[in-house]
Amino acid sequence: MGIHEIRQKRVRKMMDQSHLDGLFFSSLENIRHLCGFTGSDGAFVLSQGESFFLTDSRYWTQSEKEVKDTQIVRYKKKTDGILSLLLDKGFRRIGFESNFLPFSLYHFLREGLPKEVELIPLGDEIKNLRAVKDEEEIVLIRRAIDIASKAFGHILKMAREGIVERELAFEMEFFMKREGAEDIGFNIIIASGERSALPHGRASDKKIEKGDLILIDFGSQYQGYHSDQTRTVVCGAPSPEQKKIYQIVKDAQERAIEKVRPGIPIQEVDSAARDYIRQNGYDEYFGHGTGHGIGLAVHEDPPVNRENNDLVQEGMVFTIEPGIYLPNWGGVRIEDMVRAASSGVEVLTYLPKELVEV
Amino acid sequence: MGIHEIRQKRVRKMMDQSHLDGLFFSSLENIRHLCGFTGSDGAFVLSQGESFFLTDSRYWTQSEKEVKDTQIVRYKKKTDGILSLLLDKGFRRIGFESNFLPFSLYHFLREGLPKEVELIPLGDEIKNLRAVKDEEEIVLIRRAIDIASKAFGHILKMAREGIVERELAFEMEFFMKREGAEDIGFNIIIASGERSALPHGRASDKKIEKGDLILIDFGSQYQGYHSDQTRTVVCGAPSPEQKKIYQIVKDAQERAIEKVRPGIPIQEVDSAARDYIRQNGYDEYFGHGTGHGIGLAVHEDPPVNRENNDLVQEGMVFTIEPGIYLPNWGGVRIEDMVRAASSGVEVLTYLPKELVEV
Repeated sequence: MGIHEIRQKRVRKMMDQSHLDGLFFSSLENIRHLCGFTGSDGAFVLSQGESFFLTDSRYWTQSEKEVKDTQIVRYKKKTDGILSLLLDKGFRRIGFESNFLPFSLYHFLREGLPKEVELIPLGDEIKNLRAVKDEEEIVLIRRAIDIASKAFGHILKMAREGIVERELAFEMEFFMKREGAEDIGFNIIIASGERSALPHGRASDKKIEKGDLILIDFGSQYQGYHSDQTRTVVCGAPSPEQKKIYQIVKDAQERAIEKVRPGIPIQEVDSAARDYIRQNGYDEYFGHGTGHGIGLAVHEDPPVNRENNDLVQEGMVFTIEPGIYLPNWGGVRIEDMVRAASSGVEVLTYLPKELVEV
Repeated sequence: MGIHEIRQKRVRKMMDQSHLDGLFFSSLENIRHLCGFTGSDGAFVLSQGESFFLTDSRYWTQSEKEVKDTQIVRYKKKTDGILSLLLDKGFRRIGFESNFLPFSLYHFLREGLPKEVELIPLGDEIKNLRAVKDEEEIVLIRRAIDIASKAFGHILKMAREGIVERELAFEMEFFMKREGAEDIGFNIIIASGERSALPHGRASDKKIEKGDLILIDFGSQYQGYHSDQTRTVVCGAPSPEQKKIYQIVKDAQERAIEKVRPGIPIQEVDSAARDYIRQNGYDEYFGHGTGHGIGLAVHEDPPVNRENNDLVQEGMVFTIEPGIYLPNWGGVRIEDMVRAASSGVEVLTYLPKELVEV
């Protein structure tokens, strides 16, 4: 059985439990996951016996090459194409991606389908659809990590007083692409000095100065799969306060990593980091979640935060990335990617975590 | 009056006509257009007297620097933040982006607001919100065009038999970024030989061969604004059939460009190209629309296709890009960007259109 067929089977099981006879997806990551299509527009419809990928003329040739275990249906206009397939199949209870489907398409289908047909918004039922990674996915994620880790080593040699953040980011990006990444995973963050207190400080024209903390958050994309890592380094010798904050974040991050194992509530991974930062008096400076799932999307399920009381499942892959950000001073974040393994936790990333001076 | 205030005023006029006392936006391009925020998460709420940008802790510092003519509201959780502001303001008729808002957020607000409050899906009312470009926007679009055009000239010197498509795309991207582009506008298409018949043939590992048509679709992004151009060149001397198809596409494109002027239905621009291609017997090989608006998004309103019976407005900017794609043979597309000027049409792009041999 092909990988896409296995994944479709998993969705059919959920459909069964939710008493759905039809389901349609329009998010590109879910479409790629379920049938292999890598283009930028289309839809996917599943029933208990059949699966359909719907697309327009731009993607006919491409979809014939890529799409697996699925019939290809051509449309001129997407909304009409989806509606007419749903009508043809005579579904009675049709699930859809509640967090993704735009109101207008929902409304169009609602108006076009007979009143007795139910449209069922799916949230919790599909939230972890891609959260557990299979072996083929792990291979691609590891490759994305390898490329990005090498790129980090490369720019670390260049990082010094006087160099502009953007130059480092630029060099990192091109290194990753030369190494075979199809893209960077997201806008590279290189934030130095006070800018390191911006959790999303995209590389700017600022020059790195002596004494700056330099927060570097980077990842690559390889055959659709992402990596995401953060290291914070210092320009010159660190001050006692920099050392102290760094150590707290590092200890917090390690506590969270140690917590990971199948069966524990995800929020406990978050609180392992958060409680430690709180004990040290910095919890108000840690404003984001501890991590997020990662795969075909940089951010996907499961979120690793205090609200998520789902259990860690074997095979889930997510980041662990606590941080402390002090306005007008600077910030530290340390981020790795982990996989929940039967034995506990496997840390997929491998860059050293000691505070590096550049 | 600042540019964002002017844009907000324009929206308020529409709100007045639609009897809305509140409106909220969650699409990032509309948010950027209306208040200047360039980050990747937030919301924007407008009433007749006030405007609010809502964001979380990641973007507090950034939004204070960027957001103009708008109050900044902080939230912990986005959905709660939006709902609580809408409740606070006591709106009775609230508009939202029908083509963008996910069903789940609509549903959350619907459940959280009193029954007598109306949530009004906006489609046609806001579809051309960003379609007419002001002078400040044109300056940025021109800069994006300049960067991309230079990059095209650069890789044309490298394009020859034996070079790999991906190498050319890579070099083009690198060149644009060195020239100041913040990003490429979209994945560069370099599709040679039979691959040129794929309208979306992202650069691959294929080597360019003698006799190949090479379709190159490229653009840059500069301060949020995009360019988008296509040229098709040939490796070696063109065959009679290549010359013929090229000439038909070129003539069709020029006919569409000449058609552009304020006041005519947009579909007439499409049909100027489409009818000409039909007269030559190739209409079944021109499967996409003739063009699209472009600005903060690569594809935005107005679509230039046979369905769009809106009138061209002075200041609208869009692409004109007919093509003919023959399976197992190759394809030709020629794309420029135009602005509807009071006098007729201004072609913003300026690369020559003669068939180039490389």
